[in-house]
Amino acid sequence: VLGTGIVGRTIAVALADLQHEVVIGTRDVAATLGRSSPPMGDWLAEQPRLRLVAYEHTAGCDLFVNATNGAGSLAALGAVGPGLSGRIVLDIANPLDFGRGFPPTLLVKDDDSLGEQLQRAFPAAKVVKTLNTVTAAVMVAPHLLPGPSTIFLSGDDADAKAVVRGILGSFGWIDILDLGGIDTARGTEMYLPLWIRTMQALGTPVFNVAVLR
Amino acid sequence: VLGTGIVGRTIAVALADLQHEVVIGTRDVAATLGRSSPPMGDWLAEQPRLRLVAYEHTAGCDLFVNATNGAGSLAALGAVGPGLSGRIVLDIANPLDFGRGFPPTLLVKDDDSLGEQLQRAFPAAKVVKTLNTVTAAVMVAPHLLPGPSTIFLSGDDADAKAVVRGILGSFGWIDILDLGGIDTARGTEMYLPLWIRTMQALGTPVFNVAVLR
Repeated sequence: VLGTGIVGRTIAVALADLQHEVVIGTRDVAATLGRSSPPMGDWLAEQPRLRLVAYEHTAGCDLFVNATNGAGSLAALGAVGPGLSGRIVLDIANPLDFGRGFPPTLLVKDDDSLGEQLQRAFPAAKVVKTLNTVTAAVMVAPHLLPGPSTIFLSGDDADAKAVVRGILGSFGWIDILDLGGIDTARGTEMYLPLWIRTMQALGTPVFNVAVLR
Repeated sequence: VLGTGIVGRTIAVALADLQHEVVIGTRDVAATLGRSSPPMGDWLAEQPRLRLVAYEHTAGCDLFVNATNGAGSLAALGAVGPGLSGRIVLDIANPLDFGRGFPPTLLVKDDDSLGEQLQRAFPAAKVVKTLNTVTAAVMVAPHLLPGPSTIFLSGDDADAKAVVRGILGSFGWIDILDLGGIDTARGTEMYLPLWIRTMQALGTPVFNVAVLR
């Protein structure tokens, strides 16, 4: 799991709960452990199943979860390096620019997406975009909502999508909507402006859409 | 109702069914009547309750529905002119660029929206963005879907939003989610790339999202 924010931590714990062997990757282990907000060292001390390692020491993992800040995802995966080759990258990141305050704006228009940028930059990896349309708590516990809601899937590799579909199922997702190739990540990434405003209107990030058809 | 495409026609018929007095506005009446695809003259002949008039002859209407092509909306409302003053503009249009093929891309990024552009261009009008997240058939018949789904509302004028809320209710909408000011149209307009890809994945435009919370 690349990324030590709330998304990375939530996914890492959920995968460990499902008996996966999980390491959390970060750019600079010492800097991450020393970070006080949120206090990573204290949190990690309570998670004996999880190890924190530098990105370049994640080589050998079967599957990578990109839970980094969207603006830093290319650099993070670049630091992992050749270890990505042939591996699945479950990409949760959103290309949001928080530099101009809240609400953030997108770093891409709908003629590209972060998912495609990652796939282009690391052609030997199998990028599957999913989970980027819900808050961390809902990603691993869709039953928090009062009925089955929809999670979207985008990726070029059918086998990789089947593996990710299995992980989603183990989190409790039932309505998994395969949109097609990684270019369809344009759809779910561009949904973020609506997600943000819905969150503001509802006063909670704990919601999701169910696609009724 | 400004616009003679499938959205304009569907809304016009639905409003007439609800006993509203409806005129359809177009740029050039003769050209519109002569259009063969779709055959407007034949269709209109079967709609005795609806009159087709030039945009500038819609003055006096209480409420305007912008069902024009998003790329032509500013020009269409400009042709209506001073008649917009103090009036509600129920804006359904999406700023889509079909010039580069399918799927279309957006004419705005998420730092602006067509709804805001219209409100800025016609400050004496009260622009309310809604219905732009569903296909025409669903706009006026949300019961086509197997459960209550969500329709979004954006606008700066609370009274105008209350009127539009009433119209939505008369179409059968129950879950009407007020996102806030007209700037929140950025959310619903930027949802179009996901709408398009969901439509492609499902093989039908007859769907909508229900916001579960």
